[in-house]
Amino acid sequence: MKEFDLIKRFFAEQPVQRKDVHLGIGDDCALVSSGEHHHIAITTDTLVAGVHFFADAEPRAIGHKSLAVSLSDLAAMGAEPSWISLAITLPSVDENWVSEFCAGLFELAEYFNVQLIGGDTTSGPLSITVTAQGLLPANKGLSRGGAAVGDWLYVTGELGDAALALKMLQQEALVVPEHQEVLLAKLHYPKPRVLAGQILKEYASAAIDLSDGLMGDLAHLCQASQVGANIVLDDLPLSAELLANVGADTARELALTGGDDYELLFTVSEDNKVGMETALSNAGVKFTCIGQLNKSMKLTTTLYSNVVQVNAKGFEHFSSD
Amino acid sequence: MKEFDLIKRFFAEQPVQRKDVHLGIGDDCALVSSGEHHHIAITTDTLVAGVHFFADAEPRAIGHKSLAVSLSDLAAMGAEPSWISLAITLPSVDENWVSEFCAGLFELAEYFNVQLIGGDTTSGPLSITVTAQGLLPANKGLSRGGAAVGDWLYVTGELGDAALALKMLQQEALVVPEHQEVLLAKLHYPKPRVLAGQILKEYASAAIDLSDGLMGDLAHLCQASQVGANIVLDDLPLSAELLANVGADTARELALTGGDDYELLFTVSEDNKVGMETALSNAGVKFTCIGQLNKSMKLTTTLYSNVVQVNAKGFEHFSSD
Repeated sequence: MKEFDLIKRFFAEQPVQRKDVHLGIGDDCALVSSGEHHHIAITTDTLVAGVHFFADAEPRAIGHKSLAVSLSDLAAMGAEPSWISLAITLPSVDENWVSEFCAGLFELAEYFNVQLIGGDTTSGPLSITVTAQGLLPANKGLSRGGAAVGDWLYVTGELGDAALALKMLQQEALVVPEHQEVLLAKLHYPKPRVLAGQILKEYASAAIDLSDGLMGDLAHLCQASQVGANIVLDDLPLSAELLANVGADTARELALTGGDDYELLFTVSEDNKVGMETALSNAGVKFTCIGQLNKSMKLTTTLYSNVVQVNAKGFEHFSSD
Repeated sequence: MKEFDLIKRFFAEQPVQRKDVHLGIGDDCALVSSGEHHHIAITTDTLVAGVHFFADAEPRAIGHKSLAVSLSDLAAMGAEPSWISLAITLPSVDENWVSEFCAGLFELAEYFNVQLIGGDTTSGPLSITVTAQGLLPANKGLSRGGAAVGDWLYVTGELGDAALALKMLQQEALVVPEHQEVLLAKLHYPKPRVLAGQILKEYASAAIDLSDGLMGDLAHLCQASQVGANIVLDDLPLSAELLANVGADTARELALTGGDDYELLFTVSEDNKVGMETALSNAGVKFTCIGQLNKSMKLTTTLYSNVVQVNAKGFEHFSSD
């Protein structure tokens, strides 16, 4: 008990102090307020040792990723991150581990001006649950269900790098030494697309963050919006490191089905296309148009203008029949 | 993955639909809004199998308690419960277990008009984390730090019953058969003092909920308020079942140090005493004055007007020296 009290001190030293937090860590509840005319976006993600990360992974990376995955959900809604609650279950008290975990978490929290307002520290198998909250103007939230037939399909960044890094760690793929660090960083230190999300809430018709793989997440978006989609495989954004190590075919497969990208998948109407592209370019956000929505209620892919079948998890008719 | 999707359907069928929830379960985030001039109280609690409950405990009781402990924190702040996020980690998919868990959780949620707005379902060792949110008028929050020398010390309900039930389950105490059910209900189905908390926010100077035991939680309140306190042991509210099974001395010890009461401990100034007592009585809330705050910076106890030493966890000078 006392040992856990000690650990709580690490969390009490979190670096951000927001004006909309009226009572922070240390009481029965935290107290916060949203500005008038604002909605609050709320998301919860759990990372379990041995399932979502290797139990012996660097604690700094675990701390970073625990927050990053939730901020990615806020980004997909177009929200500005504000407050987080952290529930951490630890098998034993290892001050060094907790210190490194906090360093990874707080570096990201400070960057996005997110304040840790409370949580719970318990004893048990290693697991981390973050509930993150963010603010956005009322009725500006980017849901999955707003896309329409004819809208263009985009992604931020590059896809498949984290999936290759995971395969490398699982000894299912070989990566040349000079590319290992950059690929592992994509897996362990994903950068949530918070800025892109805040720009996109003014232009996009729908958005979702890529956590389970492009095909699966696109299926969720299409189902919520009641549309189909075609992906132009030629246009998938693939990194030089990915292409150099596995070749184009495997690179596309990883981009379509690999998880942990934490990029945004979003749709934009013809009318908003130029405005969106200008705004994202001005902000220095990399983005790529990878296809278009249609009324087929199916997901299809084309390569060199030919329809191709992709043998990919989630790549199936997604209606309920 | 598909099995977990199935499980998610149980959670999607939650019974409450609030007007301040603009987007519920199923997107990247939920969207909610607080009324103007309201603060939001936020609390997070984790229950781990084998630590906070027996792994083979009734799932309905686990569902109830997972929510009750968080609502108790909201009650201690004087907040009206509004939204909850549920992160549940399950070792395997057992539909019957989840169905019973949901029944326990949702019965309580419906009673207090709390809407489940999202969460995460993961695979791993059994563990439940609830983040609960509640609303209260700005600057009306009941913190631990508002008590002053001379304020009267009160508790709601009766203390020690849950601690005896736990001892019974651990085969450390014998309870006559006709008392077992009522005591076990105190342990497994605690009733968060939400109504009392909302009344007390108008009268009390400080409050905390009793989760770790009276002495330990009183020490937190006194430390936050920079006061000392004396408890009149003669006045501790003890149930007939508790007294009948263990006698007065052990009953007092359990009331002072046993956890899991989920009653409120609160302080009231001389000026607000009558108003508070009238308001709680009119609402049918049981309460007892158990002592008074002083400037000693220590916790003391008296019995028949004599100072007595209690050998109790948490019962020690609580300043940092």
